[in-house]
Amino acid sequence: MSTGALSGTVRIVGAGLLGTSIGLALSKRGIDVVIEDAVRSNQALAVDYGAGRVSASDDSPILIVVSVPPDVTAEVVAKELETYPDAIVTDVASVKTSILQALQASNAPLDRYVGSHPMAGREKGGAVAGRADLFAGRPWVLTPNSNSSPEALDLTSALAETLGAQLVRLNAAEHDRAVALVSHVPQLVASLLAGRLVDSNAQNVALAGQGLRDTTRIAASDPNLWLQIIEANHTEILAILKAFAIDLDQLIRALGDLRLPGALSTTIGLLEAGNEGVARIPGKHGSKATEYAQIIVMIDDTPGELARLLTQIGEAQINLEDLKLEHSPGAQIGLTELYVHPDKHTALIDMLQSNGWRIAG
Amino acid sequence: MSTGALSGTVRIVGAGLLGTSIGLALSKRGIDVVIEDAVRSNQALAVDYGAGRVSASDDSPILIVVSVPPDVTAEVVAKELETYPDAIVTDVASVKTSILQALQASNAPLDRYVGSHPMAGREKGGAVAGRADLFAGRPWVLTPNSNSSPEALDLTSALAETLGAQLVRLNAAEHDRAVALVSHVPQLVASLLAGRLVDSNAQNVALAGQGLRDTTRIAASDPNLWLQIIEANHTEILAILKAFAIDLDQLIRALGDLRLPGALSTTIGLLEAGNEGVARIPGKHGSKATEYAQIIVMIDDTPGELARLLTQIGEAQINLEDLKLEHSPGAQIGLTELYVHPDKHTALIDMLQSNGWRIAG
Repeated sequence: MSTGALSGTVRIVGAGLLGTSIGLALSKRGIDVVIEDAVRSNQALAVDYGAGRVSASDDSPILIVVSVPPDVTAEVVAKELETYPDAIVTDVASVKTSILQALQASNAPLDRYVGSHPMAGREKGGAVAGRADLFAGRPWVLTPNSNSSPEALDLTSALAETLGAQLVRLNAAEHDRAVALVSHVPQLVASLLAGRLVDSNAQNVALAGQGLRDTTRIAASDPNLWLQIIEANHTEILAILKAFAIDLDQLIRALGDLRLPGALSTTIGLLEAGNEGVARIPGKHGSKATEYAQIIVMIDDTPGELARLLTQIGEAQINLEDLKLEHSPGAQIGLTELYVHPDKHTALIDMLQSNGWRIAG
Repeated sequence: MSTGALSGTVRIVGAGLLGTSIGLALSKRGIDVVIEDAVRSNQALAVDYGAGRVSASDDSPILIVVSVPPDVTAEVVAKELETYPDAIVTDVASVKTSILQALQASNAPLDRYVGSHPMAGREKGGAVAGRADLFAGRPWVLTPNSNSSPEALDLTSALAETLGAQLVRLNAAEHDRAVALVSHVPQLVASLLAGRLVDSNAQNVALAGQGLRDTTRIAASDPNLWLQIIEANHTEILAILKAFAIDLDQLIRALGDLRLPGALSTTIGLLEAGNEGVARIPGKHGSKATEYAQIIVMIDDTPGELARLLTQIGEAQINLEDLKLEHSPGAQIGLTELYVHPDKHTALIDMLQSNGWRIAG
């Protein structure tokens, strides 16, 4: 990917997870990055990590990335547009309509603004969680407004491409509707579900399996950040939550008396709708990505065994696309899930078998 | 672990995921296993896999494991108790009270029965998904009834221990209350959430990230099996769903007008409760397990790099407790999350640094 379009200074305002990650990735590619944060210690940390340099009075950025909390994003974008009249400005907030409306109300020069939303994140925030490859392969939504100049769109597109993200173009309203469904409502539902555990006894929670862990993982996210997101996108979220509540109410009524006509068919209908819904989600690496072949190898739980396995895979010139280790304490055996391109599947199986590895699936 | 107590034939009725997995694990340990399934092709497949042999007329099992769908479990348990008057019988259904009540009503000899619920499963079912180590390190709930003999409890305990599971003893009612919270309600909530995706457009779902995938993964489970589980445990499930619905209703009212007094504090309160709830879930390896130290290493995405890393870890005599590879297509760098016992943390960091590995966190 070319960084040609980004042949000037990029200024990042806000050294949190996203700002730091963008700074790390651009700096690695030799781009001059200025990173700034209202909290001096955040800024110092990000600079220390290699996410950029401190600003100088004669900086003349071509692109400014505002990566501050959603509730101050519009204000900071407006200020940056004013301070740097030659720069294109984007932001990375996970809501777009409310920010655009605030900018329109403030008469900001919207030709130089294109909204962004990189669909990447972690439960952990802050510069310390920053990663140069955070955006690689992830969708990056661009939300140009009706006044956005071609140059503004080009430069923000170049940013996303340089970071290895997959460009998606939506308007602000489309974006907010989509993220309410795939991000904001799942967040709230996970929080409500995890909330049920607060008053439970430890013995019950001790029986938790992977299902509970997966369904509640994102409930560990920052409440203050999420309150801002929810507030900014409450209309779209509300519509989906209300539909969810209708389904829930149906289920509660069905479970209240399973002998009533339709109670069982309502219940199984909701379970089947769940099957159908989950099948609509594209694969881990996006719908366009190759489906990898999976091979499960059983290895002894001793130091060096996994290394021996991977050394042989490396010697066979087979590149692993992914690897998952399923380790159970006390068990003598670990399961290693290997993922390779389908055209390497047979070669890997042959190699494993000829070297005496036990293949479990 | 000793298999001494299981020094006779174990008979498994039902060659699905759990029955086949138990058969595979016991057979591997040299125990004589008979595996039977009403569907001949299932039975043939399980025998073919090495999960046991076909039954003979002179079989005299010491232990019978009933692993059939929940709604026929009580009936099959009663029949097995009658057919084999010297055998101990257990089942592996994920509900326990309704089965015990049905057995009590049928005047079955409950001294020879102890309920089991191995807390292990996969979204995929059937013999083909069976794995010998499915139970290793997972909780295995035993639910003896007031008439269960010491011998019955010993033999079912020996089964769970032989399979490497962690024994948990609860009565049937305690069990059902616990699994409603940690398994059945999360299943239903995941189904309801995934159900919201059915009518969405592909463009919106394409923005899905790991959060949506995790919160809906278990919604891919078998509706028919789950209908039976939900039906059998509807009272406990209903109580939790109603509490969930009250929280959801509060949230909907708050989002309906965020300017109302208390609306913001209600919303953030629910998010904070989610934080608190998720923190109560014990770590991946159960509450008694050590918290592992995590170290993230950045490696080049070339064959052999991971092997080189793990070879060095093995040579340093450091045992990895877990390993996760985060691979982004197109990225030149992969992140490898290494998990070790805390007392190996410093040694690993030192070794990695002296060998020039880049540590990301």
